[in-house]
Amino acid sequence: MIKNKQFRKVIDRYRVEEGKGFRLADHAPGDTAGLTMEKDAATALLQHGIELLKQAQDMLYAQDRWSVLCIFQAMDAAGKDGAIKHVFSGVNPQGVTVTSFKKPGPVELDHDFLWRHILAMPRRGEIAIHNRSWYEEVLVARVHPEILAAENLPPKLRGKNIWDERLQDIAGFEQYLSRQGVVVLKFFLHVSKEEQRARFLSRIEEPEKNWKFSADDVAERHHWDEYQAAYEKAIRATAAPHAPWYVVPADNKWFTRLVVAGAIAMALGELDLAYPKVGPEAMARLEAARKELE
Amino acid sequence: MIKNKQFRKVIDRYRVEEGKGFRLADHAPGDTAGLTMEKDAATALLQHGIELLKQAQDMLYAQDRWSVLCIFQAMDAAGKDGAIKHVFSGVNPQGVTVTSFKKPGPVELDHDFLWRHILAMPRRGEIAIHNRSWYEEVLVARVHPEILAAENLPPKLRGKNIWDERLQDIAGFEQYLSRQGVVVLKFFLHVSKEEQRARFLSRIEEPEKNWKFSADDVAERHHWDEYQAAYEKAIRATAAPHAPWYVVPADNKWFTRLVVAGAIAMALGELDLAYPKVGPEAMARLEAARKELE
Repeated sequence: MIKNKQFRKVIDRYRVEEGKGFRLADHAPGDTAGLTMEKDAATALLQHGIELLKQAQDMLYAQDRWSVLCIFQAMDAAGKDGAIKHVFSGVNPQGVTVTSFKKPGPVELDHDFLWRHILAMPRRGEIAIHNRSWYEEVLVARVHPEILAAENLPPKLRGKNIWDERLQDIAGFEQYLSRQGVVVLKFFLHVSKEEQRARFLSRIEEPEKNWKFSADDVAERHHWDEYQAAYEKAIRATAAPHAPWYVVPADNKWFTRLVVAGAIAMALGELDLAYPKVGPEAMARLEAARKELE
Repeated sequence: MIKNKQFRKVIDRYRVEEGKGFRLADHAPGDTAGLTMEKDAATALLQHGIELLKQAQDMLYAQDRWSVLCIFQAMDAAGKDGAIKHVFSGVNPQGVTVTSFKKPGPVELDHDFLWRHILAMPRRGEIAIHNRSWYEEVLVARVHPEILAAENLPPKLRGKNIWDERLQDIAGFEQYLSRQGVVVLKFFLHVSKEEQRARFLSRIEEPEKNWKFSADDVAERHHWDEYQAAYEKAIRATAAPHAPWYVVPADNKWFTRLVVAGAIAMALGELDLAYPKVGPEAMARLEAARKELE
């Protein structure tokens, strides 16, 4: 039997609640907390995590008070889609929605940048997974000035402080969400440049993976360091106890999934989740119903 | 010819950009800035304001960069609907939307309180008028504890600081909006208790006004002082240069409308509105098109 204590120890290693002084360089993409996939413990831990998550989601939905927003951010090929697939495939899809945010279209660009993400907010009792998120507005938009230029902002609002202001606004909005009962969990899948190269090659070599690859992805590798710097700044400015980042080592897919499943399960485990209690009056109605049915 | 300077003097009297120390008692609901309806100047000023507003809205729409959010809040019968009707009836409805927020329904209560208002945000180039707004969450919800109780929040989030936190969150969100190119203008139509009484009586006495009256409206008068206190706190916490309040005297409908039209026209006048300029390349295409048509 695996203890939750053991699980928590692994997860806490990657949880960032305080951004000040955070350095991406302190986090190794190949770290596995001393676990190896071959050992039964790792596989069992993942299963345990998914099981906890399933149980918690069932209560979350029944209780209908809290909701959960899981944000996934990463460089290409870091394993976002795979993590979502493996961690959530066992969970009841009634109560879970995944939204993948691509390049914004004209209606989206006609609004403030949070707007399209807010449309996809979870309802109470539900888990919303955002595959990419408002953080793209301080990542890709920061690395590529032409993206900011295409955002139709009045020119005088494209000032020097725009990135700090956006990070401040995002942090403020996440605090607001937490006060509204939205549990905000943010995952940065931290892959190494070398592992990304290997995964791109396999996407080119294996026909069934070809659709996942675009030549543009390789061009983006030239901006690797700028992206890493932008991620570091984003995590520094927005990590908080009510909206933590999990900087998940992503060079080993099995480990990434274990940490993601565990982190969500642990976070839900800290809520006061419970099935709604039936009071004496409702209990009397249940009894009356039983009599009629009998 | 009426000068904009004269207009600005009237409007500035009611504009609150700095909430600290704001007292509702310093504002008289019957004030008319020395104007009287009988004098031509007042009627001419209103027409002038509406004309400025129409011209500005046309450029706003063509330029497609800024958007405008006008929030209207008031006690019942203060004249919100009438002000919206009279000020905006001359403006092109392509580019203006009015959303009236009533009691939230089950889908709305399943989300954070800003959500339903954000769905109704203006697109770039547009003016959105919110007849009641997120401020109800620190007004009616504050005066009536049963409304807060029905909001399905996890109990631990209904703490002592909830009103200050909500005001802080609203102020933060409005600052964010202003950074996104949304001009936020907030109108509190400040009516006296005695004038409200007179207007309720006329709603009862005149058959064509009956539909506007509900017996509950009279019951709400018992909470008058609590509402006034809640408004004062809301204005104190959220008045800012980028999201000003206009505390509009509302005992004289003609004057209320004049101030509302003027305030919006003046605010739009401060933007860098202009019709999009056609560059040399596009000009060449225009010339080519002319030739083909001729």
